[in-house]
Amino acid sequence: MAWLRPCWPRCAALRWRPGGAAWAPQLGKAPGVAPRGPWHPHGGRGLRTASPGLGEVPLTSERYRVRRLPFSRLSPQDVAFFQRLLPGRALTEPAALEPCNVDWLRSVRGKGPPFRTQGNVSRCPHRQPGPWAGAKHSKGRPAVKNVWFKIIKVSASGRSAAISHIPCHFVLSDFRDMPPAPLAFVAGSSTLLLKPQTTAEVSQVLRYCSERNLAVNPQGGNTGLVGGSVPVFDEIILSTVLMNRIISFDTVSGILVCQAGCILERLNEYLEQQGFIMPLDLGAKGSCHIGGNVATNAGGLRLLRYGSLRGTVLGLEVVLADGTVLDCLASLRKDNTGYDLKQLFIGSEGTLGVITAVSILCPQKPKAVNLAFLGCQNFSQVLETFTTCRAMLGEILSAYEFMDEKCMELVEKHLKLSCPVRDSHFYVLIETSGSNSTHDEEKLNSFLEQAMTSGLVTDGTVATDDKKIKMLWSLRERITEALTHDGCVYKYDISLPVGKLYDLVTDMRARLGQSAKNVVGYGHLGDGNLHLNITAESYSHSLLDAIEPFVYEWTARYNGSISAEHGLGFKKKQFIQYSKPSEAIFLMQRFKAMLDPKGILNPYKTLPSSS
Amino acid sequence: MAWLRPCWPRCAALRWRPGGAAWAPQLGKAPGVAPRGPWHPHGGRGLRTASPGLGEVPLTSERYRVRRLPFSRLSPQDVAFFQRLLPGRALTEPAALEPCNVDWLRSVRGKGPPFRTQGNVSRCPHRQPGPWAGAKHSKGRPAVKNVWFKIIKVSASGRSAAISHIPCHFVLSDFRDMPPAPLAFVAGSSTLLLKPQTTAEVSQVLRYCSERNLAVNPQGGNTGLVGGSVPVFDEIILSTVLMNRIISFDTVSGILVCQAGCILERLNEYLEQQGFIMPLDLGAKGSCHIGGNVATNAGGLRLLRYGSLRGTVLGLEVVLADGTVLDCLASLRKDNTGYDLKQLFIGSEGTLGVITAVSILCPQKPKAVNLAFLGCQNFSQVLETFTTCRAMLGEILSAYEFMDEKCMELVEKHLKLSCPVRDSHFYVLIETSGSNSTHDEEKLNSFLEQAMTSGLVTDGTVATDDKKIKMLWSLRERITEALTHDGCVYKYDISLPVGKLYDLVTDMRARLGQSAKNVVGYGHLGDGNLHLNITAESYSHSLLDAIEPFVYEWTARYNGSISAEHGLGFKKKQFIQYSKPSEAIFLMQRFKAMLDPKGILNPYKTLPSSS
Repeated sequence: MAWLRPCWPRCAALRWRPGGAAWAPQLGKAPGVAPRGPWHPHGGRGLRTASPGLGEVPLTSERYRVRRLPFSRLSPQDVAFFQRLLPGRALTEPAALEPCNVDWLRSVRGKGPPFRTQGNVSRCPHRQPGPWAGAKHSKGRPAVKNVWFKIIKVSASGRSAAISHIPCHFVLSDFRDMPPAPLAFVAGSSTLLLKPQTTAEVSQVLRYCSERNLAVNPQGGNTGLVGGSVPVFDEIILSTVLMNRIISFDTVSGILVCQAGCILERLNEYLEQQGFIMPLDLGAKGSCHIGGNVATNAGGLRLLRYGSLRGTVLGLEVVLADGTVLDCLASLRKDNTGYDLKQLFIGSEGTLGVITAVSILCPQKPKAVNLAFLGCQNFSQVLETFTTCRAMLGEILSAYEFMDEKCMELVEKHLKLSCPVRDSHFYVLIETSGSNSTHDEEKLNSFLEQAMTSGLVTDGTVATDDKKIKMLWSLRERITEALTHDGCVYKYDISLPVGKLYDLVTDMRARLGQSAKNVVGYGHLGDGNLHLNITAESYSHSLLDAIEPFVYEWTARYNGSISAEHGLGFKKKQFIQYSKPSEAIFLMQRFKAMLDPKGILNPYKTLPSSS
Repeated sequence: MAWLRPCWPRCAALRWRPGGAAWAPQLGKAPGVAPRGPWHPHGGRGLRTASPGLGEVPLTSERYRVRRLPFSRLSPQDVAFFQRLLPGRALTEPAALEPCNVDWLRSVRGKGPPFRTQGNVSRCPHRQPGPWAGAKHSKGRPAVKNVWFKIIKVSASGRSAAISHIPCHFVLSDFRDMPPAPLAFVAGSSTLLLKPQTTAEVSQVLRYCSERNLAVNPQGGNTGLVGGSVPVFDEIILSTVLMNRIISFDTVSGILVCQAGCILERLNEYLEQQGFIMPLDLGAKGSCHIGGNVATNAGGLRLLRYGSLRGTVLGLEVVLADGTVLDCLASLRKDNTGYDLKQLFIGSEGTLGVITAVSILCPQKPKAVNLAFLGCQNFSQVLETFTTCRAMLGEILSAYEFMDEKCMELVEKHLKLSCPVRDSHFYVLIETSGSNSTHDEEKLNSFLEQAMTSGLVTDGTVATDDKKIKMLWSLRERITEALTHDGCVYKYDISLPVGKLYDLVTDMRARLGQSAKNVVGYGHLGDGNLHLNITAESYSHSLLDAIEPFVYEWTARYNGSISAEHGLGFKKKQFIQYSKPSEAIFLMQRFKAMLDPKGILNPYKTLPSSS
C-alpha cells in the first residue's frame, strides 16, 4: 500500500547538498563579544543561554547558491508607507535588523548577493543622507550605512531613468571585490523589519506587499532549526513580537485564545496561575512564539501525553498573502462545519499565510510530577522498558526520552553537568504527571521494581522535587547545546518506527568511522522521534557526501520521515521527496499557488525549488 | 477579533428551509414489514436495532426541490465497463441498491425526478429484456423492472439517433402521471452500486467517472445523520463495504493501518485482543466504516479523553476525483514534511476525495472502567459537577455526558428502560478509564463523596461490572432511538461554550410552547456538544419556521457551531454561514474546485449551493 520511495535521488534538485550541516563555532572562540541574537533556551528547561556561536555567519544566498526570485525591491516610498502605517515600528536600522537576519544556530543569514544593474548608483535626493564616515566594517574597511541609493538605468542611447531606490548598509564591504561603476552594484539585503500590533495592520502590510510584489518573511521567536525563520535575500521581516496579547481564557473549557506573538513560557506561566498548562513544551519556550509553534507544528516534550497541535489547536486567525483575514478562530472543542482550513496553516511554515491569533485547548496542571532517570545496557532494553512503563504507568506517563552514552559524555564534558546514573550505554528519562501524588508514586515504584528485577534497567534515580526534576531534565534538554560546543554539527530530525530508531545511529557510526568526531542519537522515543547528530572538527564536503543522501535513503527505506518536528524550512526542503510522494508534493505546490499566487510569503522555504 | 456572524439570513440560500427535520414514522405503524435497510446501532452501545421508520421515504430531490446538476447519465456501456472492472461487484439490482439509497433516519432518498428528452424511448436491443410482468409497485400499479431503454433523439428533419441507454426500474410508477411519447420520460435514479476491493479499483472507477462526467456518491456504513451518505439523484454509489482488510498493527507504537471499509466495532474487537482500543466510539459502531468516520470527522464518546481524529489519524490514502492516488498513509506519530494534506480530507464528507485506507494511533485498553450515573437538580450543578470531577478525576476521566429529565422520560416510555436514579431534573454519566482499578475507585469515591456532601449531586449509582455499565450507557445512548418513536424529530447538533449549553434548550422550549411535543437536550458536555431535539406529532412548516433560523442565530450569537460532530452533509450545508465567515466558505469552494473541478464527488453536499 505504501508508495515507492526513491532509493537514489532522481531529480537534479536532489544534488543540492549542504542541507544538514549547521556551522557552530565554539563559544569560547569569540571572547569579549556580547551575544547579539535573541536569547534562546534550546539548551535548558527554562534556562536561557546565549546563541551557540558568534562568528561570521555565511550568507545563505552565497553558501547555498540561491537565485533571488523576481520580487520587487523595496523603495523609499514603500518604507514611507510602512512607517506611516506602523509609526516607530517599521525599522530599517541594521542594529534592529541584524538579530532577525540570522537564525539561532547561526547557520543561515538573510542578505542577498549584490545584484548588478546596467546603470549608475547615485545618492537619492529624496532621502536624508546618513553618516558616511565613522562606520567601520568588521574587517577594518570603511562601510556605508543608512544611505539610500537611486539606481539609474542607462539605456543604449545614453538616456537614463531612475528605476529603484535602495537603502544600503554595508555597501562597501559587500562590493569590495567588485568592479566600479558604470556597472553599479547594490546590495540586496533585508532592510526592513515590521512590527505590527494588530491583525488589521498585518492585513494592510500584506495587501500592500502583494500589490507591490514584495517578498515577506514572517517571523516569531526565530528559534527554528531549519532556517525557516530568517530571510534568504531581502524579504521584509514581519515580526509578531508585539502581537503578544492574551485575548481570553475560559477556566471551564480550558480554552486559551491569544495573539500569535505570545511567548510560550509566558503563556504557560499565565495558565499555571489558573491551574492549567500549555499542551506543548519545548526547549525554546523562553523565546518562541505560539504563532511560530503553530506555523511549524512544533512537537516537543509533552506530545506523548497531550498529542500534537493538530488536535489541540482549535482555531486560527490567519492573514492570507493578499491581505484577506481568514477568521477561523473558533474556541470550540468540536466544529464540523466544512473543511478544517486551519490545518493547512499548521506546519506550513509561514508559506501560506501569517498566523495572527491562536485558540488552543489547554490541559489541567498536573498535581504531581515525578521523574525517573534510568540506565539501560542496550537499545532493546530501552524499547522493552518503554512498553513495560507504558503498560504500568498508563495514563500518567507524560514523557519517555532516551539518549545514548555519547550524548551524556558531551553534556558532561562541554557543560560540566553531572549524571547521577553511570556506566550505561543508554539513558532513559521517564516523566509522570497525574492528579494524585500517592497513586502516581505507587505506580512508578511498582514499575521501577519490575524494571529492576527483570534486569531491563541496571541503575536509576527518581526525583519528585522541582529542583532535582529540573536538573535531570537539563541532562536531556541541553544535549543540543553541548553538541554546538563539539564542533561543526550535522543535525537530523528523523521519525522512524520505534523498533528501528537506533539502527540508523549504529549504521551511520559504522559508515562514517573516523571521519566523524561523534555520532550521537537521542530523542522522543515515545513518539518515534530520533535526533541524529554528527559532529566534526570543521565542515567538510566529503563528510556531508558520506552522510547525505544515505541518511534520507535509510529513513525512506523504513517509511520514516526526514523531518519529525523541525519542519523543512530552508535547509530540508529539497529532500521532501524522501518522505512524500510526488502526487503530494504536486498538490502542495498547487495549494501554494492558489493561496499565494505571487509566492511572496516566506519564499525559498518548505517547497522544493522547481529546478 | 471574531468575525461578525449574521443575525439574519442575508442570502437567498438561507430561505431554504426544511433542513432540520427528520421524518421518522413510528415503527409500530408498519407492521409486518421486515427491516430492509442496513442494521444500525445508533440506539445502543453495541446493540443493533432496526432502522427507526419503515414507511415511504420522500425523494430528496422532490422534498428539497433540488435541481440535478448537468452530469452525464449512466449508459449501458458505462455499466459494462464497471462490470468488467468489478466482476460481480457492479450491481444494478434494485434490491441491492435500495438500502444504499436511503439514510438510516429514513429522511433522504436518492432518485432523481423523471427527466424529459425530445425523443422516443425504446427497448434496447443490446440488453436482455427483463421481466415486464409480475413486478408490482407498492401502491398496486404495475412496475417495469430491470429493463434497459434506449433514448432516441428525433431531430426536426425527422432523423433519429440513439443518444443514451438507461436502465429503468419503477418506470411506470414514476411516469404514471406523465404524458406518453413522443415526449419520452425516463427515470434518473441511482442505478449502480460499485463495491471495489482495492485502491487501484477505486482509482480506475474515479478516473472513468471523471472522464465521463459521472457523479459519484462515496458510501461507508451509511450511518450519517445529515444526509451526506446517500445519493440525491442518480449518483453512482461507491461503497467501501468490501475494503475491510486490516493492513498492519504495531503493538509497540499502537498504530493501526487498515482499509477504509473496516467496521469500527470489528476494529475495536481486533485491537482489544492486542490490549488496545480504537480512539473513537460511537453508537453506530456496529455498522459505520472507519473511512466514513474519518470522512465525517466523527466525534463520539471518547473524544474527551483521546481527542479528535485530527490528532489520532496519522495518515490517509485518498483517491482524488481524477483517479490520482494520494498516498499519505504514514504510520508515524510525527511527520513535519510539508503541508498536512490528509487533514483536508478529514471531515470533507467525500467531497474532495475517497478515503481508501487509514492509519490511526490507538490507545491502550484501560484495565479498569467505572461508571457513575448521577442526578442533579439544575444545570449549574451539572457544570459545577463537571469542573469538580475534572479536577478530582484528572487523567482517568473518559466521558462526561448529560441528559435532561425529558430525555429520561422518553427512554423509559418508548424503550421501557428503567433509570436507577429518580426525581432529578438532569442526569450525568461519568466514565473513568485507567490502569489501576484500586486507584481509580479511590479517586471516583473521593469525588463522589465531595459531590454528595457539597450538594451538587442529589442521587446516583456506580457501576464497575460490564453488564451494569452497558445498562447505564444505554440510557444515554438510546436517546436518539427513543426520540424516533416520539414522532417527527427536528434534530440539531450544536457546539457552544459549556456555560451556555442548556440555555438554548430553555429558550427553545419557551419559544415553541405548546406547538412542540417535546424539546429535549442531551450530549457530550465535556466537549461542549449539545444535541437539541424537538419532536412533534407530525411535520409542520410553521413549527420549522419557529425553530429555524432562530436556532442557528442563537448559536451564532454565542460563537457556537451549527454542527459539532454530525457534519453538514446535505441537510445543513445551506446554514454553514452561521458558523463560518464568507472568506472561509469562499476558500472551501476554491479547494473543491481545485481538487474536483467537475464536481463529481458527492455533489449537493457540504458546500452551499451557489444560488
